[in-house]
Amino acid sequence: SEQRQWPCSPSPSSPCSLAGAVARWQGEGRVAVWLHVPILQSRFAAAAASQGFAFHHAEQGSSTLTLWLGEGPSRLPGYATHQLGVAGAVLDESTGKVLVVQDRNRTINAWKFPGGLSNPGEDIGDTAVREVFEETGIKSEFKSILSIRQQHKHPGAFGKSDMYIICRLQPSSFSISFCQQECLRCEWMDLNELARTKHTTPITSNVAKLLLYGYREGFDKIDITMREFPAVYTGVFYKLYHRELPESYRNIT
Amino acid sequence: SEQRQWPCSPSPSSPCSLAGAVARWQGEGRVAVWLHVPILQSRFAAAAASQGFAFHHAEQGSSTLTLWLGEGPSRLPGYATHQLGVAGAVLDESTGKVLVVQDRNRTINAWKFPGGLSNPGEDIGDTAVREVFEETGIKSEFKSILSIRQQHKHPGAFGKSDMYIICRLQPSSFSISFCQQECLRCEWMDLNELARTKHTTPITSNVAKLLLYGYREGFDKIDITMREFPAVYTGVFYKLYHRELPESYRNIT
Repeated sequence: SEQRQWPCSPSPSSPCSLAGAVARWQGEGRVAVWLHVPILQSRFAAAAASQGFAFHHAEQGSSTLTLWLGEGPSRLPGYATHQLGVAGAVLDESTGKVLVVQDRNRTINAWKFPGGLSNPGEDIGDTAVREVFEETGIKSEFKSILSIRQQHKHPGAFGKSDMYIICRLQPSSFSISFCQQECLRCEWMDLNELARTKHTTPITSNVAKLLLYGYREGFDKIDITMREFPAVYTGVFYKLYHRELPESYRNIT
Repeated sequence: SEQRQWPCSPSPSSPCSLAGAVARWQGEGRVAVWLHVPILQSRFAAAAASQGFAFHHAEQGSSTLTLWLGEGPSRLPGYATHQLGVAGAVLDESTGKVLVVQDRNRTINAWKFPGGLSNPGEDIGDTAVREVFEETGIKSEFKSILSIRQQHKHPGAFGKSDMYIICRLQPSSFSISFCQQECLRCEWMDLNELARTKHTTPITSNVAKLLLYGYREGFDKIDITMREFPAVYTGVFYKLYHRELPESYRNIT
């Protein structure tokens, strides 16, 4: 496929020159064309659209358009399809209480775990710890993943899919100072009560029951734990989450 | 915030009218403006950019721009941050062999589980089953999630993050007919061998060891299982993945 910064010719009224180029690329057997258009030159996006191009994605100061020239439907990769929300189930093991909030704007009268959308480039556990601190003032440490949910055509995700992960966090501070903009209420609630109350969402209720099971019978019953591995080419480390694997199996050779 | 289809005035040379509108919205105390611009009218994206707007996202035939008018940094939600890749670890329990492929274009001489990017709106298990079938011709059924990996600034994701999930699948057909475009090789490999070979990626090796542990000592040791729940408002069902929760805890009231 052909990657280029358009325009080759700076005239805004030059769809014909693009049409000629597209015909040439097709003749050369290229299967796709990618156009990168700076936002201030967006009139070229309109000219390209009239030649069959469509937006692949856009962010901040530029857009990327594609035109599929190959046979059959486009085999070009899509753009990001999911937003990621992360919540923290912060359990004070000394009291059996868990940190819960009621949103100011959304689900009314429903206790939930504090959380929010991950920032670009942010690891799952870091999002949980940051959101818990921003919403409640409680400092905590990531212990494990408890649950993963996937929803599609999510109204809060501009029609994209939503991945929602709840993490188990261990608190290192206990005095609540909650964000009045986001939360109506925030408290340490007995985990037994959260597992039984009707004033919550199905997912919170379910994860509260799971957390209660772990609190009573050992967190090894509920945790999806994290390990770090080097990426194949870059050497950068990444985090892999799975069930605990005994040493005897980790060291098989 | 203000949502509108621009232009109110159809003149391409009307940045001044937008500037006036922005000043009025700011005077009214609005904190943000969203503009939806059809691709053929993209010259208005350029005019809006000269007034401080930037792309929030774009797809196919339209782009969405935002301008933050509130105090401090923008608190507007971002767009989708992750692509989702799903692979299938298909284990034939009767032989102890697992389905592996070598990619034609990427990691050379490394055995991997077949998989690929999820389509928009597709559930995790469905992506695994579809990709396994497309790459290898093997039919299978989703059993559980085995692992989750998150990587950032992913070269194959246009700089966005990548979530990569490996599922455990049970085969219902066994005769391989692999895709020559994508795969160089495809075979049923002894799971003991995959857990030990150097000709694989760290993540595949690790998940092979995990699968071997489950094969020998019970899949309940490794599975992250799926349950369905109704969404709060819509009544649509969604899938929640977590460790097995005993009935006695599910039914707490």
